[in-house]
Amino acid sequence: MLAVVFFNGRLIAMEKGTLVFQSDFGVTDSYAAIMKGVARSVSRDIDIFDIRHNIRHFDIREGARSLAQNVQYWPKGTVFVSVVDPGVGTSRKSVVLKTKSGHYIVSPDNGSLSIVAETLGIEAVREIDENVNRRPDTQRSSTFHGRDVYSFTGARLAAGIISYEEVGPLRKPEVVALPPISKPEFRDNAIFAILTGTDTFGNVGTNVNLEFFSKLNVGDYSGDVDVIVKREEEVIYQSVLPFVRTFGDVPLGKPMVIHGSAPPYNIGLSINQASFADKHNIETGEGWTIELRKGGNE
Amino acid sequence: MLAVVFFNGRLIAMEKGTLVFQSDFGVTDSYAAIMKGVARSVSRDIDIFDIRHNIRHFDIREGARSLAQNVQYWPKGTVFVSVVDPGVGTSRKSVVLKTKSGHYIVSPDNGSLSIVAETLGIEAVREIDENVNRRPDTQRSSTFHGRDVYSFTGARLAAGIISYEEVGPLRKPEVVALPPISKPEFRDNAIFAILTGTDTFGNVGTNVNLEFFSKLNVGDYSGDVDVIVKREEEVIYQSVLPFVRTFGDVPLGKPMVIHGSAPPYNIGLSINQASFADKHNIETGEGWTIELRKGGNE
Amino acid sequence: MLAVVFFNGRLIAMEKGTLVFQSDFGVTDSYAAIMKGVARSVSRDIDIFDIRHNIRHFDIREGARSLAQNVQYWPKGTVFVSVVDPGVGTSRKSVVLKTKSGHYIVSPDNGSLSIVAETLGIEAVREIDENVNRRPDTQRSSTFHGRDVYSFTGARLAAGIISYEEVGPLRKPEVVALPPISKPEFRDNAIFAILTGTDTFGNVGTNVNLEFFSKLNVGDYSGDVDVIVKREEEVIYQSVLPFVRTFGDVPLGKPMVIHGSAPPYNIGLSINQASFADKHNIETGEGWTIELRKGGNE
Repeated sequence: MLAVVFFNGRLIAMEKGTLVFQSDFGVTDSYAAIMKGVARSVSRDIDIFDIRHNIRHFDIREGARSLAQNVQYWPKGTVFVSVVDPGVGTSRKSVVLKTKSGHYIVSPDNGSLSIVAETLGIEAVREIDENVNRRPDTQRSSTFHGRDVYSFTGARLAAGIISYEEVGPLRKPEVVALPPISKPEFRDNAIFAILTGTDTFGNVGTNVNLEFFSKLNVGDYSGDVDVIVKREEEVIYQSVLPFVRTFGDVPLGKPMVIHGSAPPYNIGLSINQASFADKHNIETGEGWTIELRKGGNE
Repeated sequence: MLAVVFFNGRLIAMEKGTLVFQSDFGVTDSYAAIMKGVARSVSRDIDIFDIRHNIRHFDIREGARSLAQNVQYWPKGTVFVSVVDPGVGTSRKSVVLKTKSGHYIVSPDNGSLSIVAETLGIEAVREIDENVNRRPDTQRSSTFHGRDVYSFTGARLAAGIISYEEVGPLRKPEVVALPPISKPEFRDNAIFAILTGTDTFGNVGTNVNLEFFSKLNVGDYSGDVDVIVKREEEVIYQSVLPFVRTFGDVPLGKPMVIHGSAPPYNIGLSINQASFADKHNIETGEGWTIELRKGGNE
Repeated sequence: MLAVVFFNGRLIAMEKGTLVFQSDFGVTDSYAAIMKGVARSVSRDIDIFDIRHNIRHFDIREGARSLAQNVQYWPKGTVFVSVVDPGVGTSRKSVVLKTKSGHYIVSPDNGSLSIVAETLGIEAVREIDENVNRRPDTQRSSTFHGRDVYSFTGARLAAGIISYEEVGPLRKPEVVALPPISKPEFRDNAIFAILTGTDTFGNVGTNVNLEFFSKLNVGDYSGDVDVIVKREEEVIYQSVLPFVRTFGDVPLGKPMVIHGSAPPYNIGLSINQASFADKHNIETGEGWTIELRKGGNE
């Protein structure tokens, strides 16, 4: 939050607070910009950033993943405003989560906070008291709390206008959970897991982290992996791929097993300078699974 | 604009000016970023924001709507640079509108300013004097006034390098108008109106504001509305829908009549967590009309 | 870079450093935002901007062009972080180019720097010493140097935490080149050239600059030009077009020959308020050429 230096009663320097937005509002309407205008109107003593506003509409899990991927990289005290809010104006609660890492996240408590709460830990959860933390004269609208409640409250918190305590009353230190992602299994010297998503480069992710993957004893960026990708029972892709450290460790256009760039370093499938997902028509979600075995196993 | 505090002749604190861009330059070229580079080169004493740069190419009405949706949410004194300028380099005038609300908008006077001038009021209009308010050594180019005139002038104004008076000579307090949107009509206990646009969620907007809608006596978020959408004479959609306060007031996937989140709260059609426009193949523009009646009327 | 003013040993004012990002990371993942989070964590004494993050994946030439189009517009001392890095984690070098214009560019030395080095001149090239200029505890990841090396180093440089000398050891003042673009030829009173690209408006660019174009003696925005566009030997488009100063110098929907808005003012083909590329199915790249002759020549 804002750090200020006074000299003879006058503000002479400040470290501005940090306010970071994400939403499913898209980039072809005014919604995202309006949230920033509201924040700027609250205070010029904050710097404002965006993660992105093209979370899939109503996709709480994508919003939750995005928070979990991003929050840790921003300074302690950063205030995030996350608006994936299909239940806007209904009984879902509006809260500010303080993580054990010292970050604040303003969001509907609808599952958006579930992953980041697990990875960074819950220091406290406060419910936003809309009697004080809502833009004046906005009672007529019930469909844009991103503007009227979340941006307004986030900006006030980031600017030091209100303390965390002034957000509203403490709740139990827990947040609404999402249906859990299935865990990978290890049996018969094989890992049975799921595909969790693809990125813009066509890298395909799994729910197998590096520690779990070590059960295969493939070796540290040296061995081969038998890979089978299935949609339900149909084999979509099958090959023996090298487990490598970076994309350029295989020739141009060749596939590999590789891990992600952040803990817990989940295992994925990639092609050097091409899209694994596009080339092999791989999608993710319901019914898409992956089997991994040490290469050359009988 | 910029507020500064001096102490013993030295700058010791400042409230930075606010500069906000919108354009039809898209996001796959360098044009939008170049405008920001120019502004940053003018002064580091401003903070720079974007509404968006994906206004449809040459679509002055979309640019005008976007200004009207956004300006009010930013602090008094904010300088906007709006560049939807199909007539760049021709005889259209370059102006800075000062609204009665205390906002400044730098734009070609080609209709872009028409809606915001009506909603926020015209305090004054000044024509940009390009003899002083143009980047040096740019006379060879006549196709990028967003860079050479608008961003340059907007940044100087936002930074307090020039006053509003120094923009250039006063003109009559009026701006170029766009062809008017037709007004809704009320006859035979029905509202006859048009569809004005859809947003990224598939919400469909009309030109019927909440006050006009009250002629139907539907009640305050309680009654039903007979809705007919036509393309020319063809009925595209017909149903009886509840008039509700927010999306979650109907079950998942169900349609509703709802109003917008900002005055004058125009009436629209939505589906809870889905796209009304996509589901019913609704477009907007020429020939698309809507009829609204109190539900259950004979 | 950062300029600071101390008073009695306390910071009382500062001109913040400027950090500008571009990448091929796209806008649907967290990669671009994570780079900004890292930079903000390094220092709050910098202002952070984006050129854009939708450079085509792995397209080093597009990244190089984008730098060349943008850098000159930003203030001296600005630090750019350019991440188009298909060889991440391999033997390509990570460097900071200082241009003769006083700009700094943090990038893999993979061709990304080639055009801007030519247009702005090389003052010095330093290789990043990753022993000191890398985020702590990131040795496990070899696939996200944009986060671990480039953003981290760029932010430290822009904030004045390290000097340019502290980036790492000097290298020879040269950068990796890209295969050269062919030069236009003038023979038989005609210019034989290539199409270099299209922008979002459908303007089509060539490698013919204004000085070279003057060989045709068309006159200064007054004469006609015989234009032939070919794909290999096939004539895709042929017409006599006026050479004009700006789009509105021809009627709505009419084509023209026009030059770009920045030196060396390359010649292009446009339509007033429509897309030349779309209307005539013009693409660019391998095999697409253009012939220009003074209009009315026999």
